[in-house]
Amino acid sequence: MKKFLNDPRRLVRELLEGFTVAYRDKVRLSGPSTVVRAKPKAEGKVRLITLGGSGHEPGLSGFVGTGMLDVSVAGEIFAAPGAPKCLDAIRAACSHGSSALLIVLNHAGDVLTANIVMESTLRESLPVKMVLTEEDISGPPGDRRGLAGCVLVYKVAGAAAEQGESLETCCEIAERMQRNMRTLAVAVRTATHPATGHPIFEMAEDEMEIGMGQHGEAGTGRMPLKTADETAEIMLTRLLEDLAVAPGEQVLVLLNGAGATTHMELFIVFRRVAQLLEANRIKLARSLIGEFITTQEQAGFQMTIARMDEQLLQLWDATADAPYFAKP
Amino acid sequence: MKKFLNDPRRLVRELLEGFTVAYRDKVRLSGPSTVVRAKPKAEGKVRLITLGGSGHEPGLSGFVGTGMLDVSVAGEIFAAPGAPKCLDAIRAACSHGSSALLIVLNHAGDVLTANIVMESTLRESLPVKMVLTEEDISGPPGDRRGLAGCVLVYKVAGAAAEQGESLETCCEIAERMQRNMRTLAVAVRTATHPATGHPIFEMAEDEMEIGMGQHGEAGTGRMPLKTADETAEIMLTRLLEDLAVAPGEQVLVLLNGAGATTHMELFIVFRRVAQLLEANRIKLARSLIGEFITTQEQAGFQMTIARMDEQLLQLWDATADAPYFAKP
Repeated sequence: MKKFLNDPRRLVRELLEGFTVAYRDKVRLSGPSTVVRAKPKAEGKVRLITLGGSGHEPGLSGFVGTGMLDVSVAGEIFAAPGAPKCLDAIRAACSHGSSALLIVLNHAGDVLTANIVMESTLRESLPVKMVLTEEDISGPPGDRRGLAGCVLVYKVAGAAAEQGESLETCCEIAERMQRNMRTLAVAVRTATHPATGHPIFEMAEDEMEIGMGQHGEAGTGRMPLKTADETAEIMLTRLLEDLAVAPGEQVLVLLNGAGATTHMELFIVFRRVAQLLEANRIKLARSLIGEFITTQEQAGFQMTIARMDEQLLQLWDATADAPYFAKP
Repeated sequence: MKKFLNDPRRLVRELLEGFTVAYRDKVRLSGPSTVVRAKPKAEGKVRLITLGGSGHEPGLSGFVGTGMLDVSVAGEIFAAPGAPKCLDAIRAACSHGSSALLIVLNHAGDVLTANIVMESTLRESLPVKMVLTEEDISGPPGDRRGLAGCVLVYKVAGAAAEQGESLETCCEIAERMQRNMRTLAVAVRTATHPATGHPIFEMAEDEMEIGMGQHGEAGTGRMPLKTADETAEIMLTRLLEDLAVAPGEQVLVLLNGAGATTHMELFIVFRRVAQLLEANRIKLARSLIGEFITTQEQAGFQMTIARMDEQLLQLWDATADAPYFAKP
């Protein structure tokens, strides 16, 4: 395996150590794999908490910081963290009279963990609400994964919390963002699992797959590799249809590189997305292009389209200062 | 070639179009391949200009914005832009009573272009100075390439220019940053040239090469792949020695991913760098980990160590708002 690693059993511990030392002005470790903000924050501010597997760096811990998340509970590579760690994080977050919003991406292990945690918080009468992100249109409604759209939810709910909004309001905003976003992924090359050394999935040299999940979960089928413009059109058309975007509405576009796909390619795809939106008289309100939630050195990307209203735009534009998401 | 592309002849035009539409609040195209700031700036402010080949996204144009560059003249893939385009950009920059600082990475084509441009500015009596970055220690002093350290020069000189400093002062600061930084690269897997479809270099499955240039130029020789900790130690030791860093001094560490190397690996390497600095009683003053100047989907990274004084730290910490470098 051509990766810069040491003992695979210490992988997550080492990466979190490096991450929190590099950004020690913004984040710190609280326990072996829970990342929290380093800077003090307002008493009573609603705490935003997320959980999820590692191996997707810079996500999810890269978004802990002012105006975004308060806590990220990290699991092992591609695996949910245990419920006890998450419950500890929530208890700590609520210990000074604050309430907490738990944001969970819809993956079986993460949801199992979150459900156990939520049952416990109910028993302990902790003021916690949970929002599930499930915007991947490769599955039918009601059975959709949470992909990179979580970054949008972190941002708008995080801005609301920073502005002193109540748990109910933060939850309503997170739910509204989640309802108004859709994501579709495409993969063209697999990655190597950094702990096992095995490829995450198999794929022929001339194939691509639309709808593939973050860990190589099957999508809507293989097809021959297409050009950037063709790929952009196929994906955008499906997303706009599923979200039922009408002419005159305004959207945010997020292109999230899977790992090995270049920014160059993402810009070329984005150019076509912008052209198609204009042709459909849909306003491109905001955009974000980069690597936010990766799958090791997989090649491909996720496209997220989100319908934005004036309040969501205002929250999107609010200042933020997380290691991998800064807005001056 | 498994990349999302259209016509390879239109590659740079399309990527710059996508980039400038995505970040239209920060940058715009001025001519077919010159990226300039979108926001107005102070009259008389020193203009920072850079030039270089494309295919390294988000660099170099990703650093055009408040507190950093004013102009980036982009060439074709891995090729310097022509002198006429650069000269036009400098003339435009100087047209309202401003002076210009041209920052050039030491690569044969870029320097050839820059020298032609500087001769012309001399003939036209334009107030222009040039700084060459040449911090790659894989070559002997006097014959060193410019690698990702240019981002540090853009940042500190850009902050000085934004604060209204003179051309002489901005140039002195850029030179000081350049003199006080060193970079070393390591590569483990090649990338595909997006225009020709050919691999950039050849490498065996169990090899790595320290000192390889940004386009696969030979380094200090191949060796068997090492662990993250061993690689970090080899590279850091050479850098500290070349820069002659003494105990008690403070440094900035930049880890720049080549494209396919994960943030996870960079964090693991960084962790060891931080440990070694501490063991050597060298203060880790600042750090920056991510993808800034890539070589397509090449695997590997560059490590830059820079000796920082109080003024350079202050300039580093100043607010900035470029598409791929924001400091709140």
